[in-house]
Amino acid sequence: MNGLSPQEPWIRRIPVSMTPPALKDNTADVERLIKGLEKALGIGGIRIDLSLAAKIPSVVRERGYRVEAVLHEEHGAWRVADVLPADRVGSVCGLAVDLGTSVIALRLLDLSTGEVREETSFLNPQVEIGPDILTRIHFAGQKGGLKRLQSLLVDRLNQEILSMVERRGILIREIAAASVAGNTTMTHLFLGLDPYWICREPYIPVLNKPGLVPSADLGLRISDRGTVFVFPNAGSYFGGDLIAGILASGMNGEEEISILVDVGTNAEVVLGNRDWLVACAGAAGPALEGGVAGMGMMAGPGVIDKVVIDAATGEFHVRTIEGLPPVGICGSGMIDLAAQLYLARMIDIRGKYVAEKCGERIQTIDGVQHLIVVFPEDSGTGGTLTLSQVEMDGLMRSKAAMHTILTTMIRMVHLEWKDFRKFYVAGTFGSYINPRSAIVLGMLPDLALDAYEALGNTSLAGATMALLSLREREAVDEIRDRVTYVEMNVNQEFMNEFSAAKFIPHTDRSLFPSVP
Amino acid sequence: MNGLSPQEPWIRRIPVSMTPPALKDNTADVERLIKGLEKALGIGGIRIDLSLAAKIPSVVRERGYRVEAVLHEEHGAWRVADVLPADRVGSVCGLAVDLGTSVIALRLLDLSTGEVREETSFLNPQVEIGPDILTRIHFAGQKGGLKRLQSLLVDRLNQEILSMVERRGILIREIAAASVAGNTTMTHLFLGLDPYWICREPYIPVLNKPGLVPSADLGLRISDRGTVFVFPNAGSYFGGDLIAGILASGMNGEEEISILVDVGTNAEVVLGNRDWLVACAGAAGPALEGGVAGMGMMAGPGVIDKVVIDAATGEFHVRTIEGLPPVGICGSGMIDLAAQLYLARMIDIRGKYVAEKCGERIQTIDGVQHLIVVFPEDSGTGGTLTLSQVEMDGLMRSKAAMHTILTTMIRMVHLEWKDFRKFYVAGTFGSYINPRSAIVLGMLPDLALDAYEALGNTSLAGATMALLSLREREAVDEIRDRVTYVEMNVNQEFMNEFSAAKFIPHTDRSLFPSVP
Repeated sequence: MNGLSPQEPWIRRIPVSMTPPALKDNTADVERLIKGLEKALGIGGIRIDLSLAAKIPSVVRERGYRVEAVLHEEHGAWRVADVLPADRVGSVCGLAVDLGTSVIALRLLDLSTGEVREETSFLNPQVEIGPDILTRIHFAGQKGGLKRLQSLLVDRLNQEILSMVERRGILIREIAAASVAGNTTMTHLFLGLDPYWICREPYIPVLNKPGLVPSADLGLRISDRGTVFVFPNAGSYFGGDLIAGILASGMNGEEEISILVDVGTNAEVVLGNRDWLVACAGAAGPALEGGVAGMGMMAGPGVIDKVVIDAATGEFHVRTIEGLPPVGICGSGMIDLAAQLYLARMIDIRGKYVAEKCGERIQTIDGVQHLIVVFPEDSGTGGTLTLSQVEMDGLMRSKAAMHTILTTMIRMVHLEWKDFRKFYVAGTFGSYINPRSAIVLGMLPDLALDAYEALGNTSLAGATMALLSLREREAVDEIRDRVTYVEMNVNQEFMNEFSAAKFIPHTDRSLFPSVP
Repeated sequence: MNGLSPQEPWIRRIPVSMTPPALKDNTADVERLIKGLEKALGIGGIRIDLSLAAKIPSVVRERGYRVEAVLHEEHGAWRVADVLPADRVGSVCGLAVDLGTSVIALRLLDLSTGEVREETSFLNPQVEIGPDILTRIHFAGQKGGLKRLQSLLVDRLNQEILSMVERRGILIREIAAASVAGNTTMTHLFLGLDPYWICREPYIPVLNKPGLVPSADLGLRISDRGTVFVFPNAGSYFGGDLIAGILASGMNGEEEISILVDVGTNAEVVLGNRDWLVACAGAAGPALEGGVAGMGMMAGPGVIDKVVIDAATGEFHVRTIEGLPPVGICGSGMIDLAAQLYLARMIDIRGKYVAEKCGERIQTIDGVQHLIVVFPEDSGTGGTLTLSQVEMDGLMRSKAAMHTILTTMIRMVHLEWKDFRKFYVAGTFGSYINPRSAIVLGMLPDLALDAYEALGNTSLAGATMALLSLREREAVDEIRDRVTYVEMNVNQEFMNEFSAAKFIPHTDRSLFPSVP
């Protein structure tokens, strides 16, 4: 590592003073700068691009041979990426990006201190082409489609970057680097790579390890000679977002075995420790996210995220985001509601409404039973908020799928739940899940509650870590190379397990001793 | 060197067969190619640019996972620069370029065999801006001047490349790399670097080691992801052409001490062996090249390149290039002529015409004595070809300057002529010099004739070597770092030496025992 400890950052801003040239010292301006930097850092082999080299003579002369250089570590060597105006406060920034299919999250960091200068998120502009990945892959195959998907994304990112630098009073060129994590398709679209084969057997990405990409090649408006670290993927269904998640959880460095579950439209699961990592992705069912259930929606103001049912009185206590009158229910609220309904025996072990227990809360619309969660007088919409049996059945399938995936996974590696010290829940949605409710439903295993740890947006957290530290950036490739991706075979055993898991908490109650 | 022997080429064309992807083997197309190459070469860490990565899936699928890749060694790692059509014969080419101030020489090489496919040279198009370097440096300082000088050069090179590939039936993309040697200013103009400070005290180049530059950054029309190795300089007056010359001579690897002299407008001198190298440049006088003497011209058809005078009869025997009727005399012809005139005592030890010896060949024009070299009836111009006393005086100054530079140089390193085993003469002009004539004049030291070796265009030869071999390419930087450039102080001792050297062969005749 050229004498620099790997804990060091891979973007550095280094002040350097040079001896001005003289007849007895005819070293060129560029090599004078490089020698000064090599001396300051105690390393050799620093390189520079021709485009920057061309500017060095005027820059160093204007500034009396005292400048501040921005250096990037790339493939074991350092590159001078910029020489900044001397009148600027000595900071250098970077962007961590989570390229979500639905939402893009962006974090501006001071790379010297690690301080978060600003954080923002916005709807992925590709949603205008299609909300789901498959639609976008098909669109990418049309003439100009790939280019358009990439432009939508990059233009929107550039717009956000411009607003950020204006608000923060920094210069575009002071954003020296970015670190980007996303699923395999999103990463392909960001890089302008055709995702055609990702969704076609045998599901092959264009590339696994984009590594360090010049910002100019992507059209990303950071420093002209900026570097973008793009997280690798381990296959079409195991993307950089999950690798970032592993990094963020720290499970890859721990002696004890942990499990990391990213609950989104799919459930992505990683098991392992510092010696081994096994990953799997499976459809956990769309009912876990808003948009499928009639009243299910993404978390937002007035959305029910917590429900308590008084088993004695049958009274519902709902908590909404920002405490506003309820307008709907999100996935985590739905899990809470179902668990409470079960504990109050208002649903049975099959998840079916028990009419005699629900009383006036049961209403039949078009021949389907609906549970009234909020009566019109209490709602923010003026109407009733209901959850139909169909929606509840969907939730039951989702929770069964999740349980089945988890069980199948741990069986595949010949482990039992008692072997796990930590159960990390990743994803914004996962953060809201009440683990106790998920255990009651039999969605998550019956571990001690303190084993559960919600990590939030681990994709963004991992991207941040890789941006700040060379050791972490290098750990990313190490994780990717070490993780074994397993396809989950939907065989008879899996289907039997799935059927058994459709009951609350499970047909084998001994698996959930804590659930009454 | 990643397991490859350093004698190996740094551009390689490698056939690779991959196992097509399957459900059990989901490696991405790009990494599949890279793994195949790493296996074929027995090395690791092969990289690829995003722009090429994007094309890999369709290319490998079209060709059934059997392709031919072009790889470049860069900074100790290999990069995939292209994947060539399978229907092409398995060759990969490169361009060696000597960027002369007056003439550009170009050589197209097959990099697999080292075979020269074609060689050409043409007038440096920058001559239209100014024939000399200083005029161009000043022009570069004007608005758009630098860009124009670069474009003139690169456009002309591209035009030649296009003609070459058309004639040879190869593809532009099959020219994978170029190797370019030129003096410091020419190299700066080629790279688009402002040479402003090169001619201003303390004479500092923008950079010393351009190294490997992407062809796209220069606008050079070879393969899109081609690499251009640009020779380094050791200062404003010690350019890549000379470093190429050292490489071509091989003196940097020899145990015995050699001297290399590049005779052009300036005389550039290098002394040394495998342990040390000392270089110096000095003005050898413009009379040595065509354009100054009225009849002096660059070598070309009909130009006198050899003269023999029958001392008994006073008869002149001239040899011309291509045996055509004489139209002028080139520098080497002039040296031959002067030596023969001296041996026939038609000039004295001061280089002055001896009228009684010259007889009818002396003619006075505008009060200046002229020697008739060719009478009108024998000339290709219909007129007389003459050499004036003024021109002869210029030649005497030039030969004295050359001797003084050489003498001063060997004194600086405390050596004597007997210490030198080899005297390499570089440059096209140098190739034509008859060493015996130069010794007679006292221009070159009185060494055994077999010590002299004319190397021709060593800049082009060195560029060729660095293009063909990684070891030689790496030797270039090693030479640059090892060579000590000394400014020649024009002090009293130097001037005394110069005065003594103005006589034929020298005031100290003991230095030239072989000259009668």
